[in-house]
Amino acid sequence: MSMNSFGRIFRFTTWGESHGPAIGAVVDGCPPGLAISEEALQPFLDARKPGQNKFTTQRREADLVKILSGVFEGKTTGTPISLMIENTDQRSKDYSEVAKAYRPGHADYAYDAKYGFRDYRGGGRSSARETASRVAAGAVARLVIPEVTIMAYVSEIGGDAIDPANFDAGEIANNPFFCPDAAAARRWEALVDNARKDGSSLGAVVECVATGVPAGWGAPLYAKLDADLAAGMMGINAVKGVEIGEGFNAARLRGEENADPMRPGADGTEFLANHAGGIAGGISTGQPVVVRIAFKPTSSILIPQPTITRSGEATELATKGRHDPCVGIRGVPVVEAMMALVLADHKMLHRAQCS
Amino acid sequence: MSMNSFGRIFRFTTWGESHGPAIGAVVDGCPPGLAISEEALQPFLDARKPGQNKFTTQRREADLVKILSGVFEGKTTGTPISLMIENTDQRSKDYSEVAKAYRPGHADYAYDAKYGFRDYRGGGRSSARETASRVAAGAVARLVIPEVTIMAYVSEIGGDAIDPANFDAGEIANNPFFCPDAAAARRWEALVDNARKDGSSLGAVVECVATGVPAGWGAPLYAKLDADLAAGMMGINAVKGVEIGEGFNAARLRGEENADPMRPGADGTEFLANHAGGIAGGISTGQPVVVRIAFKPTSSILIPQPTITRSGEATELATKGRHDPCVGIRGVPVVEAMMALVLADHKMLHRAQCS
Amino acid sequence: MSMNSFGRIFRFTTWGESHGPAIGAVVDGCPPGLAISEEALQPFLDARKPGQNKFTTQRREADLVKILSGVFEGKTTGTPISLMIENTDQRSKDYSEVAKAYRPGHADYAYDAKYGFRDYRGGGRSSARETASRVAAGAVARLVIPEVTIMAYVSEIGGDAIDPANFDAGEIANNPFFCPDAAAARRWEALVDNARKDGSSLGAVVECVATGVPAGWGAPLYAKLDADLAAGMMGINAVKGVEIGEGFNAARLRGEENADPMRPGADGTEFLANHAGGIAGGISTGQPVVVRIAFKPTSSILIPQPTITRSGEATELATKGRHDPCVGIRGVPVVEAMMALVLADHKMLHRAQCS
Amino acid sequence: MSMNSFGRIFRFTTWGESHGPAIGAVVDGCPPGLAISEEALQPFLDARKPGQNKFTTQRREADLVKILSGVFEGKTTGTPISLMIENTDQRSKDYSEVAKAYRPGHADYAYDAKYGFRDYRGGGRSSARETASRVAAGAVARLVIPEVTIMAYVSEIGGDAIDPANFDAGEIANNPFFCPDAAAARRWEALVDNARKDGSSLGAVVECVATGVPAGWGAPLYAKLDADLAAGMMGINAVKGVEIGEGFNAARLRGEENADPMRPGADGTEFLANHAGGIAGGISTGQPVVVRIAFKPTSSILIPQPTITRSGEATELATKGRHDPCVGIRGVPVVEAMMALVLADHKMLHRAQCS
Repeated sequence: MSMNSFGRIFRFTTWGESHGPAIGAVVDGCPPGLAISEEALQPFLDARKPGQNKFTTQRREADLVKILSGVFEGKTTGTPISLMIENTDQRSKDYSEVAKAYRPGHADYAYDAKYGFRDYRGGGRSSARETASRVAAGAVARLVIPEVTIMAYVSEIGGDAIDPANFDAGEIANNPFFCPDAAAARRWEALVDNARKDGSSLGAVVECVATGVPAGWGAPLYAKLDADLAAGMMGINAVKGVEIGEGFNAARLRGEENADPMRPGADGTEFLANHAGGIAGGISTGQPVVVRIAFKPTSSILIPQPTITRSGEATELATKGRHDPCVGIRGVPVVEAMMALVLADHKMLHRAQCS
Repeated sequence: MSMNSFGRIFRFTTWGESHGPAIGAVVDGCPPGLAISEEALQPFLDARKPGQNKFTTQRREADLVKILSGVFEGKTTGTPISLMIENTDQRSKDYSEVAKAYRPGHADYAYDAKYGFRDYRGGGRSSARETASRVAAGAVARLVIPEVTIMAYVSEIGGDAIDPANFDAGEIANNPFFCPDAAAARRWEALVDNARKDGSSLGAVVECVATGVPAGWGAPLYAKLDADLAAGMMGINAVKGVEIGEGFNAARLRGEENADPMRPGADGTEFLANHAGGIAGGISTGQPVVVRIAFKPTSSILIPQPTITRSGEATELATKGRHDPCVGIRGVPVVEAMMALVLADHKMLHRAQCS
Repeated sequence: MSMNSFGRIFRFTTWGESHGPAIGAVVDGCPPGLAISEEALQPFLDARKPGQNKFTTQRREADLVKILSGVFEGKTTGTPISLMIENTDQRSKDYSEVAKAYRPGHADYAYDAKYGFRDYRGGGRSSARETASRVAAGAVARLVIPEVTIMAYVSEIGGDAIDPANFDAGEIANNPFFCPDAAAARRWEALVDNARKDGSSLGAVVECVATGVPAGWGAPLYAKLDADLAAGMMGINAVKGVEIGEGFNAARLRGEENADPMRPGADGTEFLANHAGGIAGGISTGQPVVVRIAFKPTSSILIPQPTITRSGEATELATKGRHDPCVGIRGVPVVEAMMALVLADHKMLHRAQCS
Repeated sequence: MSMNSFGRIFRFTTWGESHGPAIGAVVDGCPPGLAISEEALQPFLDARKPGQNKFTTQRREADLVKILSGVFEGKTTGTPISLMIENTDQRSKDYSEVAKAYRPGHADYAYDAKYGFRDYRGGGRSSARETASRVAAGAVARLVIPEVTIMAYVSEIGGDAIDPANFDAGEIANNPFFCPDAAAARRWEALVDNARKDGSSLGAVVECVATGVPAGWGAPLYAKLDADLAAGMMGINAVKGVEIGEGFNAARLRGEENADPMRPGADGTEFLANHAGGIAGGISTGQPVVVRIAFKPTSSILIPQPTITRSGEATELATKGRHDPCVGIRGVPVVEAMMALVLADHKMLHRAQCS
């Protein structure tokens, strides 16, 4: 029931605020005997790390992950794995104005309404900084599902989509946008840079594909694989929509257009389409699991917006400080992490009931 | 952790198969002292009931809900409320073909892959018949949140959307499509009827708006109100996408376009827009909570599709039996129920921590 | 988190009141493919059934268990198993006095304090009648752990203990007390009968031994096998104490007296003692799991006790109606059921993490 | 479901091994706005701290608790409170022998059976060092229940019990045994010292009384207050038995002897006895909650015991290193912490459902 935990058997709990001494995650339920090290986890943190180019926030964090428990002689022991990332580049002075007034689009107002007060420094607990903890936990989750390959990428920024004909997975690591279409990546440079210079921000769509998921993961009816993915993805900062497979487009298709017929194949069942995104009745079918996630434009913009103060008076606020002009970009490693976390959990859940 | 339960404090568990003797739900955690009766729950079941017109399945079920526990002298006692709905119109002979081959788009193949065998009669546990249990549980949830008004409707069928200018909440109950646009409802009659005659099916989009939700419900970071709504909605049969507020469209807006500025109002804070759909940082803001859900076209169609038998041989299957030509229509009461269930749970969770 | 569920993966939820139309349990997480039938479950219900002799309550219930879901063609399907037992011998008139005043030692006062009112008929939800649901769920649990043999018996009534020298497992089914010592069983006849005639009641101690539990079940630190057993047993009506292995006696031993030394044996590790009761560090050791449970004397007695009315006035109450003179006796099948339920859950939990 | 978490709404997760860099707890669900500081938590850690006299282990740990999150300007924010205690006095060389053979009575053998290997240094995760995390979490829990006073003490060591006539709560802090009977404390000095000199160890009984708990906490049937206390206490290292109120003695009483009659009192209901230990039907009655816990003698003793090596060969092992001659003594602050943790959780759970 805990509010800061996710997962059923492979379960993690995160803690920490943007401007506290550290953030972290406790991963519980990891199988024993898996080879693990801080070095193996770090690249995933690095992929999400801020301050790497002008298209992301200029906050500079080393984001070094430390393993505090659950590992012995280079292997997981089956006991909780405590992961800690120290905050090193907090600049709390940047946020003094936020203490007094609510940033539109941010959680400031809602947190105050709920808790009566809030840690306003950098958004406190509601900061996307928390996603570093998920990425660390997700790096552990990957160890549990070596049979699965997870690939996420940005498919659209500010309404400018990639061209499927240009799709090249090898391009994803070649540009600062996790973009699989080299031409789109070039266009996005100008697009994002202009938004940044305007003091504005852009939304994005991220796609994530997991291949190698065997048929049978996911437990109907309230531990459905797609429902858990929806919860996991919708809970990422700035996410406003989640689709599985054909998604909203399925609502515009006829039954025969959306069908995923089957035939006998060389390696077992062969599907003739994957409108379902690899999940039927909440259970994986053996096809690639496909999820699409909508990120809103970063709420922190330099263009002033009307808002109110904590005492209810009218004011205007332009959010200074260091921000991502398109928060969806750095969402890519987070989306991958959530995919890994959900799949690891379901692999274990399936094993519990059906092995 | 149980796989057939949903919710944290206000929690329900469903059971039952399409062609078993009955289906049901156990609602746990309901506050004591609420006035309740079978008569008060029944109208919600009736709204979802099949066989009411030619646009829904011709299976005829009375769908009478019985209260077996948790109620004394017309009031909830705080103990589990067991709700049962007997199945009365099973026609198992309709499904004999399904026993041998997998219906494309259905959960048949995935269930077999997971469990090794399945109750194939009417889809067994994977049948949308289970949603009657959710609707019954949702009717109880409504008692917990009298301050909230929930309204869902179909906003789009087969790509034909309502015109917001024609929106009239009073129309929703006036047509078999839960359509708030009288003109669209007339168009949809032909649209759905043609699909039915073609042996095909159509997808739909359902919108759900909850007004009266106070600011402060939802618990970051892994009990976010939007994440729970996403899980709840994505878990409904045939759902492939969920959006909160602006949803995927937010990905195409700039920061200033997507902002929800605030100003002091007569009754407290006044928001100048609701792109967020009433949720920020996973917590309600006091604005209407807005969710949009994509239903795929019913997978059961009369148009034959290639598929395989249980033993892996090629065959073709046209799904006979009684089916909804557009399953999204009857999704409306289910969506409302899930909204009520999530909100009731979060009201109680908020009260636990912040009262 | 639900309050009427127990277990982590193999999880059951019970519902129902003593004088409602029925009681029941929903068992979630059961592995698929296990042979099951109502006939196979019924003997466990029969063992607990009231009205079988003068040493138990004279309420007569057939306690016929019905399977409403989760089973197809004689096998579990992996979906929730709904079990229902109809109440047939309620006599609500017996309890009219209880509506007005609180029975000392019963939950009446506490329920009213918590919920503001209560279903007073036969104790409502707090009645030991609920244990029939656990016994039914436990009968399903046994199917999950065929490698385990569970044996419970009464080892002491009213302070009169069995003589270990007389222990004969074959005797347990030969007397109405589940007593493994024929001589003690004869003494208890008079003991219990006299208490009954006096309008009084007696406490009892029940022991439960599970053999065949392999080493490795139980998950430290907050899913320890012994902690779960303690919760499961302490939650049975009238239970006031739980011991594992040597229990309270261990507090009186020195380290070397309480040691369980090991040596190589023919079939692997051989323990030279079992003071630990088969559990170390919360994990099974492969030795028999031994639990001892204290049942208080039935609170319902004919000897009048001072108490107060709902409105707070002084009165006296003698609990008429039909009651067990020694509720611990009928606790035996319930204790066995809880042992099975905890072990089934831990077998599956272990398989999830360590297979 | 997580295996290293405890509680339902006020929920904590612990992590860490005896000889890792640190141990800690994440407390989730704490209400916002409670005054908190490291200084306020530290005294509870100090009460449990080892190395304070010759009756406890000579391992010296400062046990300084650090708050890493969830607190802002001296108050809880409602977000997870991460507590960390660094290990500073590990001496891993002491445990080299343990790597090869299993210590009888310890979790070594069971951990290996479960996980395939283990962190053998100081018992790793199974070390009682973990209880420092619970004590830290418990210190937070106390903030949630200011109306409750918790007092635990040792009532018996090695079979030598306190004399109730000598009970003086003021004595508990005056001796190294948390003993409320000055005369018994003097006897225990010799008793424990002799056991220590013999290389042996002693068991103990701890009693814990919580006063100020209002009627109504605890949620039947599977979130009973007594069942949760039983789970919490049985899960403490070395505990083998738990009693509520009269406990096992209730099994030896007749109904009228064990009754807790009521009468109208000056401040509402007055109970004439408290055999129930303040809990009826799983719900608090408003009387003091009384729990009694049996600790076995420390398994680590200098007297050699037969055991086996990891490869299954016979050997002998005397556990050197630094150990408590009577682990029950230092169990007192842990028992108090668990009581606070269970009560804080149930206060919040009650508020959720019944406010």
